[in-house]
Amino acid sequence: MTAARNRRICFPITSRAYYGRSQLLIKKLHQHPSIQLELMLGGSILLDKYSRHVADDIKEGGFTISASLFNVIEGGNHVAMAKTACLTALEVTNTLYTADPDVVVICGDRFEQLAIAMAAAYLNKTIAHIEGGDLTGSIDESVRHAITKLAHIHFVTNDDARRRVLAMGENPNYVFNTGSLDVERAACVDADITTEQLSGYGVGHDVDVSKPFLTVIQHPVTTENSNRQHLETTFRALAALEMPIVWFWPNPDAGTGEMAETLRHFREHHEAATERMRFITNVPADQFIALLKRTACVVGNSSAGIKECSFLGTPVVDVGGRQQGRLSAENVLRSGYDTNELRTAVKQQLAHGRYAPSHIYFKPNASQAMVDVLTSVDLYTQKRFHEGS
Amino acid sequence: MTAARNRRICFPITSRAYYGRSQLLIKKLHQHPSIQLELMLGGSILLDKYSRHVADDIKEGGFTISASLFNVIEGGNHVAMAKTACLTALEVTNTLYTADPDVVVICGDRFEQLAIAMAAAYLNKTIAHIEGGDLTGSIDESVRHAITKLAHIHFVTNDDARRRVLAMGENPNYVFNTGSLDVERAACVDADITTEQLSGYGVGHDVDVSKPFLTVIQHPVTTENSNRQHLETTFRALAALEMPIVWFWPNPDAGTGEMAETLRHFREHHEAATERMRFITNVPADQFIALLKRTACVVGNSSAGIKECSFLGTPVVDVGGRQQGRLSAENVLRSGYDTNELRTAVKQQLAHGRYAPSHIYFKPNASQAMVDVLTSVDLYTQKRFHEGS
Amino acid sequence: MTAARNRRICFPITSRAYYGRSQLLIKKLHQHPSIQLELMLGGSILLDKYSRHVADDIKEGGFTISASLFNVIEGGNHVAMAKTACLTALEVTNTLYTADPDVVVICGDRFEQLAIAMAAAYLNKTIAHIEGGDLTGSIDESVRHAITKLAHIHFVTNDDARRRVLAMGENPNYVFNTGSLDVERAACVDADITTEQLSGYGVGHDVDVSKPFLTVIQHPVTTENSNRQHLETTFRALAALEMPIVWFWPNPDAGTGEMAETLRHFREHHEAATERMRFITNVPADQFIALLKRTACVVGNSSAGIKECSFLGTPVVDVGGRQQGRLSAENVLRSGYDTNELRTAVKQQLAHGRYAPSHIYFKPNASQAMVDVLTSVDLYTQKRFHEGS
Amino acid sequence: MTAARNRRICFPITSRAYYGRSQLLIKKLHQHPSIQLELMLGGSILLDKYSRHVADDIKEGGFTISASLFNVIEGGNHVAMAKTACLTALEVTNTLYTADPDVVVICGDRFEQLAIAMAAAYLNKTIAHIEGGDLTGSIDESVRHAITKLAHIHFVTNDDARRRVLAMGENPNYVFNTGSLDVERAACVDADITTEQLSGYGVGHDVDVSKPFLTVIQHPVTTENSNRQHLETTFRALAALEMPIVWFWPNPDAGTGEMAETLRHFREHHEAATERMRFITNVPADQFIALLKRTACVVGNSSAGIKECSFLGTPVVDVGGRQQGRLSAENVLRSGYDTNELRTAVKQQLAHGRYAPSHIYFKPNASQAMVDVLTSVDLYTQKRFHEGS
Repeated sequence: MTAARNRRICFPITSRAYYGRSQLLIKKLHQHPSIQLELMLGGSILLDKYSRHVADDIKEGGFTISASLFNVIEGGNHVAMAKTACLTALEVTNTLYTADPDVVVICGDRFEQLAIAMAAAYLNKTIAHIEGGDLTGSIDESVRHAITKLAHIHFVTNDDARRRVLAMGENPNYVFNTGSLDVERAACVDADITTEQLSGYGVGHDVDVSKPFLTVIQHPVTTENSNRQHLETTFRALAALEMPIVWFWPNPDAGTGEMAETLRHFREHHEAATERMRFITNVPADQFIALLKRTACVVGNSSAGIKECSFLGTPVVDVGGRQQGRLSAENVLRSGYDTNELRTAVKQQLAHGRYAPSHIYFKPNASQAMVDVLTSVDLYTQKRFHEGS
Repeated sequence: MTAARNRRICFPITSRAYYGRSQLLIKKLHQHPSIQLELMLGGSILLDKYSRHVADDIKEGGFTISASLFNVIEGGNHVAMAKTACLTALEVTNTLYTADPDVVVICGDRFEQLAIAMAAAYLNKTIAHIEGGDLTGSIDESVRHAITKLAHIHFVTNDDARRRVLAMGENPNYVFNTGSLDVERAACVDADITTEQLSGYGVGHDVDVSKPFLTVIQHPVTTENSNRQHLETTFRALAALEMPIVWFWPNPDAGTGEMAETLRHFREHHEAATERMRFITNVPADQFIALLKRTACVVGNSSAGIKECSFLGTPVVDVGGRQQGRLSAENVLRSGYDTNELRTAVKQQLAHGRYAPSHIYFKPNASQAMVDVLTSVDLYTQKRFHEGS
Repeated sequence: MTAARNRRICFPITSRAYYGRSQLLIKKLHQHPSIQLELMLGGSILLDKYSRHVADDIKEGGFTISASLFNVIEGGNHVAMAKTACLTALEVTNTLYTADPDVVVICGDRFEQLAIAMAAAYLNKTIAHIEGGDLTGSIDESVRHAITKLAHIHFVTNDDARRRVLAMGENPNYVFNTGSLDVERAACVDADITTEQLSGYGVGHDVDVSKPFLTVIQHPVTTENSNRQHLETTFRALAALEMPIVWFWPNPDAGTGEMAETLRHFREHHEAATERMRFITNVPADQFIALLKRTACVVGNSSAGIKECSFLGTPVVDVGGRQQGRLSAENVLRSGYDTNELRTAVKQQLAHGRYAPSHIYFKPNASQAMVDVLTSVDLYTQKRFHEGS
Repeated sequence: MTAARNRRICFPITSRAYYGRSQLLIKKLHQHPSIQLELMLGGSILLDKYSRHVADDIKEGGFTISASLFNVIEGGNHVAMAKTACLTALEVTNTLYTADPDVVVICGDRFEQLAIAMAAAYLNKTIAHIEGGDLTGSIDESVRHAITKLAHIHFVTNDDARRRVLAMGENPNYVFNTGSLDVERAACVDADITTEQLSGYGVGHDVDVSKPFLTVIQHPVTTENSNRQHLETTFRALAALEMPIVWFWPNPDAGTGEMAETLRHFREHHEAATERMRFITNVPADQFIALLKRTACVVGNSSAGIKECSFLGTPVVDVGGRQQGRLSAENVLRSGYDTNELRTAVKQQLAHGRYAPSHIYFKPNASQAMVDVLTSVDLYTQKRFHEGS
């Protein structure tokens, strides 16, 4: 590794979650004297109903924002998702061509990120990928590994992931287990959230955060056709527990429309059950962590249940196939889409209470480790398959 | 495997080469009673200057053509290439959504094919990929493996490729070494080409195919910036040999503009050297094979040198990084971008003459093997990483 | 005019309103023995939250639907609107190229329709435009006349409009005052709507349709920046009247986001005022007419107030600039964005009660007249400016 | 009119011709203290084979270039032309949204310019249009007037055009007859062109500019299907005259492919006739004017024959429908697509020799007049139809 002069790094942010978990990294890159950081905003982060305020926060952060691209195509189905990705890639191409960065940072496994990686690869840019090598279900599983095969620098979060990235033929000198940005961030947060603050978000009834409550985060599984029924299963299982629930709105992936409709149907036609529930689009990133610390159990299929909650020790019931295969700590119980199984699992977690922190995804300086690599590693563009590593 | 009823298969064809090598497969799928085949035409195959007549041939073949998509963006540089891919994906999404196939067949490693695979993946289609697992240089190397990670059924052409596809986590039950379609096809062709026929293509001087002549096929390497110099090197090395040359125009990838300009410059400013040369965009697929059989040596970086010529026993000098790492038979000598090295290698091949046929890429019924799989294999969409296979 | 054999007509439908008002024409074209009709669906008509059920109805109608294009880009602002139009045009180009119609029918003045007209013009298709020559405010004013200058056959709804279309240089032999499809349709409907039916749509409180109630339809004015305040003005003016109100959600044009948010704010923070209100996305076309017949007064800026209500005799208070300049009958009072002026105007209309039917937009067989032209007129593509007509 | 502070003006340039004729205006805007000028480059101006060097010149001119958009889709047919326009509009939307200009300047009647005007209109920008109100054939006729109906400020080049723009309902206070930029520029040029310089461009044989020669500029007429035959007619008519000819390559509009192929066919199969011809893509703008001054007669359908040549007094034979209806001076003879008629017209012009300069398109300070308006006129966005003006 040699010291590099002023590297231009382009960091596309297409969802609230990516911004939340990448904040430490973004700030460190922004402040680094030999890095010129440009953010590109696209996807749901620019939309009021998801996370417009996050985009506004970012704009106030003093960052250089090279583009704000409205490219979410309405429909909430597979064709809208596919076209959103393609349109994103088309627009990002122009922006990357103009910005001409040395490195493009791609996060995780959302569908737009593969599209951006493809555009960056065709433009002959060096691609750094965060969170490769993990296993999950949904289309994310394919997308994540396809990004790995386009990327040049890999920041993985655990040793299993590193092993898989190497098996896929990546150069061991460019695969770094830095731990998870999400978990580093969760470990740093000491904010709390009050009942009043929580009641300022979303719609529905107040949930008293000083008493036991559940948190539900169930996103569409794009490779399944029964997202509606799966959500109903969760609803039925939990309604019978008669506990207060903070219920997060699903992500804008294929299937989101029918899930949102189902939630609205619950509110109108199951008033008794929903009068203990609050439905929330999102809360600021720090308060989200605070919520995870306070909740009695997280139910659903969010990666936060697997990753952040492993370190926080929050009990989790992971439902269905979305996180299937993902490395998890003791705090996670798995459940199929079955009312009884799910309810039993939640009861078991409530009986157990909080877990000891796990470090499977945690290293204390994940973001700094990434900055160190990004400023010093030799950049290359021509990939070669490494066998037998 | 169970017998499947009427499967709808969508086969996007974006270049002359893909059509040439896939003809046997396409015809067998078209004629199969339990397959409904739809072709989609896009990319350079619709353009006069590359291969419009191929598109016309296809139309006369009685196939169902669900879309003819003009989507090549002019420029011949990286940004045009990236945008072509993105626009292709955007348009293909609509077409695939309407056609609603059970399987989408993706060929090889051209940049538009990854874009199509991405669109198909987001639409939750089963993807069959032909020719995964090979190693090469250029952006093709990244693209090929990224397609593998989006695909569900893999038709590889050799055992090394199979090993790599498995290492990348694919399900062994869905990775089939069927041999190469290109080579199966080369083995079937018994057409010949005459001097008169050859003189009907392209511009420049007549090349007498009954006497020794060289064939040059040198495409851009998209991850390199010096395509112009590399072509000049080849020109200088070969001009000194004073042999007749059939010189093929480069593919429309990034760098094609400067290479085309360089060829035009040769013709205008090196009249003496070029008066033994004929410059050709393309010839019908059968006559192309005939040419490979007749030529004294193929020079350049085409995969035909590595694959078809391995079986045909044609001497090849493979130049530079484009085919780097690809499994090759005895008939291939490698050369860097160096005038002397290249000229020496060609002389050595001319002295050697033709080689015995190699079967490294050859199995006699590649296309039928693919048809058998496509009609009978159980289809799935949710991928899972297979470790330790 | 000569009898034409089988003409292929392509009819793009991008909003619920266009389908509602064009139903008679579409059915007649569909049934005509010498017409091959293809519908193309795009825009908001494919989206659940606006009018997905209309698209489903259309599909059940036995029509040939050559494409269903998801192309609404989220954002509810100018950039999203502009990109929606561009993306629509891009996709429509492919579809029109494949469908290869003789005539493309363009309706009205919505922004996507100009984009479609542009694509059709570049493809050298004959364009028939419905409702040219009217005057309004908003971007619609520019869009409508620009479409006129791309179109070859003009179906205008009144003599003033005909005069303007001729002044703009169109050929008098191709400008037909057929009357308005909307009004022809309104005249045909004898459906009614009950309180129970109305309560099946939208959210909020029941409105008893047997007693006097107001209907509000206020869309964004894309050339103004203060859509939120203008909506608040209407709310304040009407809330004080203490009458039941059926309030329609705004169209998805630039400004829709802040207007929708404002309506949601009313519901949450002005419970007393909104407890007499029902908020509705849409009702079936026939019941919409029934509603216009029953309501005591229509308030807002919808063209239905100017056109359908002129014939139905429904009192209307037209607010602000969106319909500025449009030919209107006695039933319309204009009001600026001023609480007092608006409230006074509504009171005046309530005091007046229903008006006698006006025929300014009405001819009894508008749709048949259009069919007659479309089947018999000589088609042309090269336009020439007609001066002095 | 009031003095305006710093106006941001965006000037999209999509062809060599627009840059050539707008140079004086662009330079004056660039140097004006209260104007911030941004150029956007797109279309053929970025492509080597048309006018890449012009783009390079522009870049060296010190202008702010807010975007360089590769968006020409290959095909040379209607669908490629339509999609190029749509893609241009899509990309321009992003760029205009980011640049946020006060005024967007739209030139002439090329198809991409309408697309840009549409995007600008939806973004609620004030649009200034240069050269509205003229009459021609081809799709340009429709496009020009459609742009007029989207534009707010009109710079027309003659009084007939002004009359038509007013008839179309534009506000007389915003329609300015400034004369033609093309002609102002032609009047300023005192450069000459030598035989040696000319021989440095294009391919074919030398043309001695000190002796009588013809200049052919025949572009596709997009609304006609017989561009190939029309070009052959011109070729046959002129070949028989046995004069040297400078023959310009056609514009990249629909039909360009078959015309280019026809020219190549002439070169290969009519060697005797073409040995007096030079085929040229383009020459620098000043030398183009010099060529028009020196040539014995311009043949074809270029607007330069009608406009620049009216002032230069160059004899012109205008062929076919492309310029049909355009105001022309004595120097222009019209001819249909007929060998004899065309040849007779050319002979008549050769016999006549040069004409006295006409001022029908000329005012001495066209560019300064535009700058004065652009810096001082009150800007508006909501259009209203002006009747009876």
